[in-house]
Amino acid sequence: MAMWRAPSAAGQLLGRALASTAAQTSAGSKKVVGVFYKGGEYADKNPNFVGCVDSALGIRGWLESKGHRYIVTDDKEGINCELEKHIEDAHVLITTPFHPAYITAERIKKGKNLELLLTAGVGSDHIDLPAAAAAGLTVAEITGSNTVSVAEDQLMRILLLLRNFLPGHHQIVNGEWNVAGIAHRAYDLEGKTVGTVGAGRIGRLLLQRLKPFNCNLMYHDRVKIDPELEKEIGAKYEEDLDAMLPKCDVVVINMPLTEKTRGMFNKERIAKMKKGVIIVNNARGAIMDTQAVADACASGHVAGYGGDVWFPQPAPKDHPWRYMPNHAMTPHCSGTTIDGQLRYAAGVKDMLDRYFKGEDFPAQNYIVKAGQLASQYQ
Amino acid sequence: MAMWRAPSAAGQLLGRALASTAAQTSAGSKKVVGVFYKGGEYADKNPNFVGCVDSALGIRGWLESKGHRYIVTDDKEGINCELEKHIEDAHVLITTPFHPAYITAERIKKGKNLELLLTAGVGSDHIDLPAAAAAGLTVAEITGSNTVSVAEDQLMRILLLLRNFLPGHHQIVNGEWNVAGIAHRAYDLEGKTVGTVGAGRIGRLLLQRLKPFNCNLMYHDRVKIDPELEKEIGAKYEEDLDAMLPKCDVVVINMPLTEKTRGMFNKERIAKMKKGVIIVNNARGAIMDTQAVADACASGHVAGYGGDVWFPQPAPKDHPWRYMPNHAMTPHCSGTTIDGQLRYAAGVKDMLDRYFKGEDFPAQNYIVKAGQLASQYQ
Repeated sequence: MAMWRAPSAAGQLLGRALASTAAQTSAGSKKVVGVFYKGGEYADKNPNFVGCVDSALGIRGWLESKGHRYIVTDDKEGINCELEKHIEDAHVLITTPFHPAYITAERIKKGKNLELLLTAGVGSDHIDLPAAAAAGLTVAEITGSNTVSVAEDQLMRILLLLRNFLPGHHQIVNGEWNVAGIAHRAYDLEGKTVGTVGAGRIGRLLLQRLKPFNCNLMYHDRVKIDPELEKEIGAKYEEDLDAMLPKCDVVVINMPLTEKTRGMFNKERIAKMKKGVIIVNNARGAIMDTQAVADACASGHVAGYGGDVWFPQPAPKDHPWRYMPNHAMTPHCSGTTIDGQLRYAAGVKDMLDRYFKGEDFPAQNYIVKAGQLASQYQ
Repeated sequence: MAMWRAPSAAGQLLGRALASTAAQTSAGSKKVVGVFYKGGEYADKNPNFVGCVDSALGIRGWLESKGHRYIVTDDKEGINCELEKHIEDAHVLITTPFHPAYITAERIKKGKNLELLLTAGVGSDHIDLPAAAAAGLTVAEITGSNTVSVAEDQLMRILLLLRNFLPGHHQIVNGEWNVAGIAHRAYDLEGKTVGTVGAGRIGRLLLQRLKPFNCNLMYHDRVKIDPELEKEIGAKYEEDLDAMLPKCDVVVINMPLTEKTRGMFNKERIAKMKKGVIIVNNARGAIMDTQAVADACASGHVAGYGGDVWFPQPAPKDHPWRYMPNHAMTPHCSGTTIDGQLRYAAGVKDMLDRYFKGEDFPAQNYIVKAGQLASQYQ
């Protein structure tokens, strides 16, 4: 039987009503609050566009038919925002990495009825996980729901940076034609050395997709991947990150954001990379030192930086990554393709259903369970 | 022993001095004329940037040390251009698809010393091949020199159109942030049906690279590919093009431009495709009906069109593909990466060396030999 708000010493210190059992949890009407990005003029353009506030994962009818309340908003910043207002009596909070509601210790303290924090997508670093654990909350995400989406996007960004696509495209839009402006710094992916820092679910999918490109593949991680898969992919394990980096023409970041990885790619570490390196980061913006990346792009040490993750999100208008040369940045979008949205919406519905019934979630979905953080966040 | 200007009835009708034997050909100084794109401010930025006029494939020292003359230019249009001036007494003409010197029947007639036309790259449709054959010229290209470059580029364009990358990138550059503007029409490649029209060297490389993306792969060609390779790739042969097109989420054009394929994708054929199809064409622009493509993008029937080939090239400022919605166009560049340039420059040097020595070329490089067109151009 699942426990949604586990009793814990820290939780007790906060003086809350804890330890609702599954039986208690499943009874009665719950207040579910969702924080998503706004659909606006795009909301009605695609019936499968379920990831925005307007469509609210397509679960409103189902939730309300079961007697639950469902509040959705994109207003997540400051103490007067809708999220702050509704967190006070919410039981369940659904958030997403694409428009992250930063769930701080203060907000967790404020949410005195909170039991469950669900991440619609993958990556729960926008939640203060130790605080959530201390408060006895359950945190879960839709593990695997958009790993393919992100791996595909990484390969796209590797290709478009190496092949110098964007300057060529801008020539066309601007009425120009100058092949030399593209070709003098365009390269094939074939034969290049590509290293992924982190070879979890996404890193492995990327390596598998890179296989037929005839690259020299490497990966760094805390642990080696399964020998059979390693052999199939043909990727070499590099135990020492700082030994791998100088070998790579392309470095891809594939780690969760934790206190250990925050700011890990600073000026010194970027300086260890090959001059002319391409960096792709669809993991989390705060893994990089923002200014160090912008400086290395400006100096040409980094020949291209691509990704969709920033800190904070939305990125302010003056974020230096908007203005640095040779970037292939977008808003945070790689995991919220229509296919990804449908998968994580289905995953959220499934977990809510289990929560209402007092059933456990699939084991790999837990990020905080009974006061314990999942291994990747430790 | 190779014959560089084969005697032919048509050639004799033109009243030219024909039938230089290899021994005659290898004797004496030759005039070699190359037409490439201008390097300009980019020429000195990369020592491997050999594809531009300024570096002239890096073979000037070698040619001149052997007593040959080597003239290079990017001036190729009109009757007063440098090309017209030098074609009159040139023995060898090196051209490239990226900045095509259109070698018409008139120009062939004017080049009374011409023996050999070399294409630095792949695709010799900018040459009037029947006229070259009739005049007894040898036409050859560097088969395979940039097939990998083009296949990689096609996969990049498939991904960036399907995933709706460009609108997101433009948001960042313009100081905006609107995830919905990207996500409402962004899709994974996984699970989609991708069909290549033509499965020659490039088409096969593309299919091999698509394999790990878990798509539904199809190909249309005049002949089936080798059963073992077909099984390895898992692509289904579609004998009837018009039966394949309505099944595809993504259509990739991988045919040479011939009189049979010119304008082949007209309004009627595009209408047979699925609404929302993505088309990628790095083959030749003239395979498409220009206005039909622009109209289908404007109506939304085609959700994205990407490629680097146009007719003519350079594309004029008012070419409709510059202005149509959801395009991922660049100048013709996919086969002229630095890696591609180094390969086709080496191939040109090798063939010139064989020509001077009176040796045959690698069989697959001939486009016109002894009055006969290679099979793909018939």
